[in-house]
Amino acid sequence: MCLSVDGPIFTMQKIKVAQFGLGPIGIESLKLAATQSWLEIVGGVDIDPAKIGRSLAELTGVPTLGGALVYSSLSELFAGVKPDVILHTAGSSAAASFAQVRPALEAGVSVASTCEELIFPALKTPELTAEYDALCRRTGARVVGTGVNPGFVMDVLPITLTGVSRRVDSIYVERVVNAATRRQPLQAKIGSGQDPDAFRAKFAAGKAGHAGFQQSLALLAHAMGWQLDKIEETCEPVIAPGPITTKFFTVAKGQTCGLHQRAIGTVKGEAKLILDLQMFLDAKNPHDTIVIAGDPALHLTLNGGVAGDSATVASLINIVPRLLAAPAGVRLMTELPVPAWVNPAA
Amino acid sequence: MCLSVDGPIFTMQKIKVAQFGLGPIGIESLKLAATQSWLEIVGGVDIDPAKIGRSLAELTGVPTLGGALVYSSLSELFAGVKPDVILHTAGSSAAASFAQVRPALEAGVSVASTCEELIFPALKTPELTAEYDALCRRTGARVVGTGVNPGFVMDVLPITLTGVSRRVDSIYVERVVNAATRRQPLQAKIGSGQDPDAFRAKFAAGKAGHAGFQQSLALLAHAMGWQLDKIEETCEPVIAPGPITTKFFTVAKGQTCGLHQRAIGTVKGEAKLILDLQMFLDAKNPHDTIVIAGDPALHLTLNGGVAGDSATVASLINIVPRLLAAPAGVRLMTELPVPAWVNPAA
Repeated sequence: MCLSVDGPIFTMQKIKVAQFGLGPIGIESLKLAATQSWLEIVGGVDIDPAKIGRSLAELTGVPTLGGALVYSSLSELFAGVKPDVILHTAGSSAAASFAQVRPALEAGVSVASTCEELIFPALKTPELTAEYDALCRRTGARVVGTGVNPGFVMDVLPITLTGVSRRVDSIYVERVVNAATRRQPLQAKIGSGQDPDAFRAKFAAGKAGHAGFQQSLALLAHAMGWQLDKIEETCEPVIAPGPITTKFFTVAKGQTCGLHQRAIGTVKGEAKLILDLQMFLDAKNPHDTIVIAGDPALHLTLNGGVAGDSATVASLINIVPRLLAAPAGVRLMTELPVPAWVNPAA
Repeated sequence: MCLSVDGPIFTMQKIKVAQFGLGPIGIESLKLAATQSWLEIVGGVDIDPAKIGRSLAELTGVPTLGGALVYSSLSELFAGVKPDVILHTAGSSAAASFAQVRPALEAGVSVASTCEELIFPALKTPELTAEYDALCRRTGARVVGTGVNPGFVMDVLPITLTGVSRRVDSIYVERVVNAATRRQPLQAKIGSGQDPDAFRAKFAAGKAGHAGFQQSLALLAHAMGWQLDKIEETCEPVIAPGPITTKFFTVAKGQTCGLHQRAIGTVKGEAKLILDLQMFLDAKNPHDTIVIAGDPALHLTLNGGVAGDSATVASLINIVPRLLAAPAGVRLMTELPVPAWVNPAA
């Protein structure tokens, strides 16, 4: 297999992938992967007894996936076929995701994951990250967390911008998402229709809010070489100013219609990194804005923003050739070559 | 020397650099390099007899560069000291730049360059690029072309954006620069004060216009896996609508006050890549805009744009640790890890 990481991919044989996690994002990942001539989908893994043993063709509606089946574990999958890469879309916790993909890493099979905490796993689980990094180096496997947010708009993109910076003083990133245009689980996640105090209590208990937010901030700090004193994170409900009806929710005036989450990273008491995320129903003017104070000052806006769902699986597929060309270990997106679309026709 | 390419740099010893080319950009490069605690400046090279033998401290006005001298050639420099990296700022031609830095590459010394054609040297000189790539692989050296334009806003940044793309149909990049705020050589380069027909004749003869434009387009095509039928490049003078006076030029109504350059790359007759550059005196609303047609559609604007001069030397310094960690060879920016500011205090 000969991989060029920055242009056309010349493969003597296709890259074999298996999908771990067959929820909505996993199915989207498979559907996109099925359109890539450079990939061969060899199977799926899920814990749902209703899915185990069925064919991926049936689960996805993509007839060309005919021969590939769903297994209850990676070990079962590996008994029949050894993929080159596992596409992992089965949770937000780095510790749980590491444990889930351990059989792959032990077998030297690399993992690309949408697990939010894997964007910077050392933030919450430094010892575990070091342990898995050592495991990967022994077996030749690599693992990386990727995505749109975390994974791109609030971390990798601002970091890329600083490549032309003589000096960076601070970084501010603002993301406004109109959740009314998004899928049901996102509308649920942001608290649509909930009592504001109940939502606040859920966030305080770690059961609501956008995952991976602090990891984006930690990746920014790592890339900038800043030792943070602390990360402060807040999350407030956005209150519906009137009744709102979406395809999935009916929200009364005064109920929660979204969230306003903020993370601030300070260095020696000075706020150097601020991430500001507003995801709510009927948000006007969705966008991503990056403001870098320094020399030169930089002000970037992505008008309309980047829709998270479908672009997240794109980032997962696009990273595969870069990941396979990287040294073994637990990798960060900033250690891999510049991300880019992989043209399936090239 | 232990280099982390994506965060704080822990160096047991400093990276030794020498500056090749002591024109205005070379001096800017040295001044920025002198502020980097992780770099040690060991000398300079220039062909100007008035500079040879003088100290870099004298040429730059930076007293800490005291011991470093200007040599007439790399061979002379190497007789006394062997740097790890040459910072090259001495021309736009890939062929000439390769020849200039050949003694470094033969000695296994890597080169970071602002040479515009080195952004994608295979466009104009494919055999020579292959020859130098083979030379680098033999000696362990690397060479890369970097900068702001080419090197970032019209190539690396749009490519990075497509990392979240499911499909890319076409890429349009527009850059508007107010040349009145820029240094004298840029105002001269865009034809300020020239007769419009004289400027057109100069462009037709390859003696005017923005260098590296087609190389940006070729890098985009390479990253997208598109085989271009052809690249069409046009350059028209922008005509002064009234008298314009800058620090360096007085332009009468009807004379040239800048350029409007355009390059179009077609695949099977379809325009897939369009670069549009307007650099003229008193241009309103300077900006860089990237429009990616595809799924998702992406629309990015850098408000105010990125000033080329001082940011170009920043991109040159910031790429050094990434270049030293890369495999030997003629490298493209898209083959190196995500660019980022290098924090001198980390």
